[in-house]
Amino acid sequence: MTTPLRLGIAGLGTVGAGVVQIVQTHADLLAKRTGRDIAITAVSARSRKADRGVDLSAYAWEDDPVTLARRDDVDVFVELMGGADGPAKAATDAALAAGKHVVTANKAMLALHGQALAEAAEASGVALRFEAAVAGGIPVVKALIEGLAANAITRVSGVMNGTCNYILTRMESAGLPYDDVFEEARALGFLEADPNLDVGGIDAAHKLTILSAIAFGHRVDFDGVALQGIGRVSIDDIHRARDMGYRIKLLGEARRTADGGVEQSMRPTLVRADSPLGQLEGGMNMVVLEGDAVGQIVLRGAGAGMGPTASAVMADLCDIARGLVLPPFGQPAAALALPSRAKTATPRAHYLRMMLRDEPGALAQVATALGRSGISIDRMRQYDHEGGEAPVLIVTHPCAPGDLAEALQAALATGVVAGEPVALQIEAA
Amino acid sequence: MTTPLRLGIAGLGTVGAGVVQIVQTHADLLAKRTGRDIAITAVSARSRKADRGVDLSAYAWEDDPVTLARRDDVDVFVELMGGADGPAKAATDAALAAGKHVVTANKAMLALHGQALAEAAEASGVALRFEAAVAGGIPVVKALIEGLAANAITRVSGVMNGTCNYILTRMESAGLPYDDVFEEARALGFLEADPNLDVGGIDAAHKLTILSAIAFGHRVDFDGVALQGIGRVSIDDIHRARDMGYRIKLLGEARRTADGGVEQSMRPTLVRADSPLGQLEGGMNMVVLEGDAVGQIVLRGAGAGMGPTASAVMADLCDIARGLVLPPFGQPAAALALPSRAKTATPRAHYLRMMLRDEPGALAQVATALGRSGISIDRMRQYDHEGGEAPVLIVTHPCAPGDLAEALQAALATGVVAGEPVALQIEAA
Repeated sequence: MTTPLRLGIAGLGTVGAGVVQIVQTHADLLAKRTGRDIAITAVSARSRKADRGVDLSAYAWEDDPVTLARRDDVDVFVELMGGADGPAKAATDAALAAGKHVVTANKAMLALHGQALAEAAEASGVALRFEAAVAGGIPVVKALIEGLAANAITRVSGVMNGTCNYILTRMESAGLPYDDVFEEARALGFLEADPNLDVGGIDAAHKLTILSAIAFGHRVDFDGVALQGIGRVSIDDIHRARDMGYRIKLLGEARRTADGGVEQSMRPTLVRADSPLGQLEGGMNMVVLEGDAVGQIVLRGAGAGMGPTASAVMADLCDIARGLVLPPFGQPAAALALPSRAKTATPRAHYLRMMLRDEPGALAQVATALGRSGISIDRMRQYDHEGGEAPVLIVTHPCAPGDLAEALQAALATGVVAGEPVALQIEAA
Repeated sequence: MTTPLRLGIAGLGTVGAGVVQIVQTHADLLAKRTGRDIAITAVSARSRKADRGVDLSAYAWEDDPVTLARRDDVDVFVELMGGADGPAKAATDAALAAGKHVVTANKAMLALHGQALAEAAEASGVALRFEAAVAGGIPVVKALIEGLAANAITRVSGVMNGTCNYILTRMESAGLPYDDVFEEARALGFLEADPNLDVGGIDAAHKLTILSAIAFGHRVDFDGVALQGIGRVSIDDIHRARDMGYRIKLLGEARRTADGGVEQSMRPTLVRADSPLGQLEGGMNMVVLEGDAVGQIVLRGAGAGMGPTASAVMADLCDIARGLVLPPFGQPAAALALPSRAKTATPRAHYLRMMLRDEPGALAQVATALGRSGISIDRMRQYDHEGGEAPVLIVTHPCAPGDLAEALQAALATGVVAGEPVALQIEAA
């Protein structure tokens, strides 16, 4: 047995406490599996006094995570503070510059600074690992970088924010409106301090863009994600979608397009109710990887929580203990292509919901407006009038988003549509 | 860039040809991702003349795989011949003794000789990798050894033989009896030369026992698998199970039991129709990994076929090119425990189907016989008589297999049961 792998952990929230717990309770297991002892030497957090349910008395305490990151008795800096910038970024920079390995769960930092961090890690010859940043306990970064290493990846998709999935499935199962379930989720502690990170799709988009960079070998391109949150998904939409055999999920997708670009999107999407994604309940995550040799691989698991996230952090630490140091994004950072965004968006079928005023020929006017903009209608249903307005559902054939936007403008211009139409994409079967 | 990683490939069937194809078409991708060229130097197969759809002219040919395995210009011996013993074993032994890495898809060889092979690999300081041996393209060996390295694994289960799953789902969808679908599968080339490897559950049990060894840190123990094939599953059972909300799958399970042992089984099992396993169609595989920190991870993908299996072989080769050499079963072979089989089988609910003779009080006699053996009945349904006999379905509460066998004997002794009762376990929810 060689010398222990010595950890400095910054951030002692749920995940940090979970990591401490695993190191303490599974010391023998970890040593047997990695051939090395894994030991914590120092920790850091905002408050020294909080009771975290784990005994920290054997570890040195640092108030400043940057100081922790540079300690001589730390081999791996474990960054679990969060936040794209600020102390997390400063300490990570310091650790990499000092030749320490870094393991982090910080998706925001990677989505915004991944390229520079990867270059710094490679320059120092150390590992920068972030399995816990994407889809919690699911080993999806490993599956993509290593398990599918010989595949040209064609598509990565999935549900990557458990809170949004909880809200959408809870709305359906309880028949509650969005605002009520949003408040429930806040009360349960499921939401980030800035809830828009969750319901605005930002957190999930951070994750998607990390997977996209690995899958397609380009620099992380968070600004390249077409982003739409779940705030406008109504209980009505959920019910109407269900009637047509769909469920609504916040679906992320990164795909290689025909023009050689990459298209990244994170949007509420109708998926077949009987598909694996359609059946995903509550806070679960599911990632679908598609490669030219392997076909389709589906991975499902808890996307958050103490145990699952700590499991992913520890897996990275075990790899480092076993001596594995790979380029963070699966190939040298210098070789990563500049983002090449797809010029034209992939045409997709859409679900449209709008309220028609009770006027003769209203439906015909809308249909005509859509048709003139080149939107072909697959299915259309008008429901009974509710207070002088009738809900109309339209499922289009695949259409370009630009054409659809134009068509919706034209529909509004007829004057028979009340309020703003809702348009949600439908996943191709 | 360092020197190329040089492969010697023995066995040029579907998978071998798939590996050659990936090496040839993805040379740049592989070099970019692994930092090394991957090159084939020599190949071997039974017939030199067969047209395999790939150009082999640049590679040396060896008639004898043992000679291939020992060549000076081979760094990795890629064993894709199959068969637990014979040439595959001889060549693998030779390769390991000569200090060559080995990548193999040979589940039978590993299930029967895994311990000796792992010891030989570790003694030579080389890798012995077998991702392709379990669940085709799904990176499940990697997920277990690396992705869940910090978890005490509690249970590994899943559907690991695509042919059996094809037969069972096809019986249901087409309403055809077992024998007809078996012949269909044979005509489609889905069955092994010895079909009992598939339908007898042996192939799936080979895979299970490899995962169990990794999960629980014991020597592979194929003889410890309680094995039951699908040959006695009738279309009647499939329909009756469906009526009760179940589907029948050949389910493998390895679990840590309360007495500290490990229980391995591969049996036709009723699973909830609305569960991920219940929805698994056709030739797909699904593996469910359960760990104390991560909870439950579900992995789904193609369990066989040229692309998926070659993808897994190539993933192992990429790891070797990247310099990763781990103990084959995730910890040193010498540290693997002797198999410790669970003393008492886990009690499970069972589905029983039997034909009752048209006699007054027949049902009561069976119920009494079951009750006297301590079998408690959850649900019972008697169907209309068919030619003087009435099918009876019974769902029991969880019971020990020993008690159940005794109870079925007692039921037969009443004389009111025609033929042999069918007993299938039901997966706990």
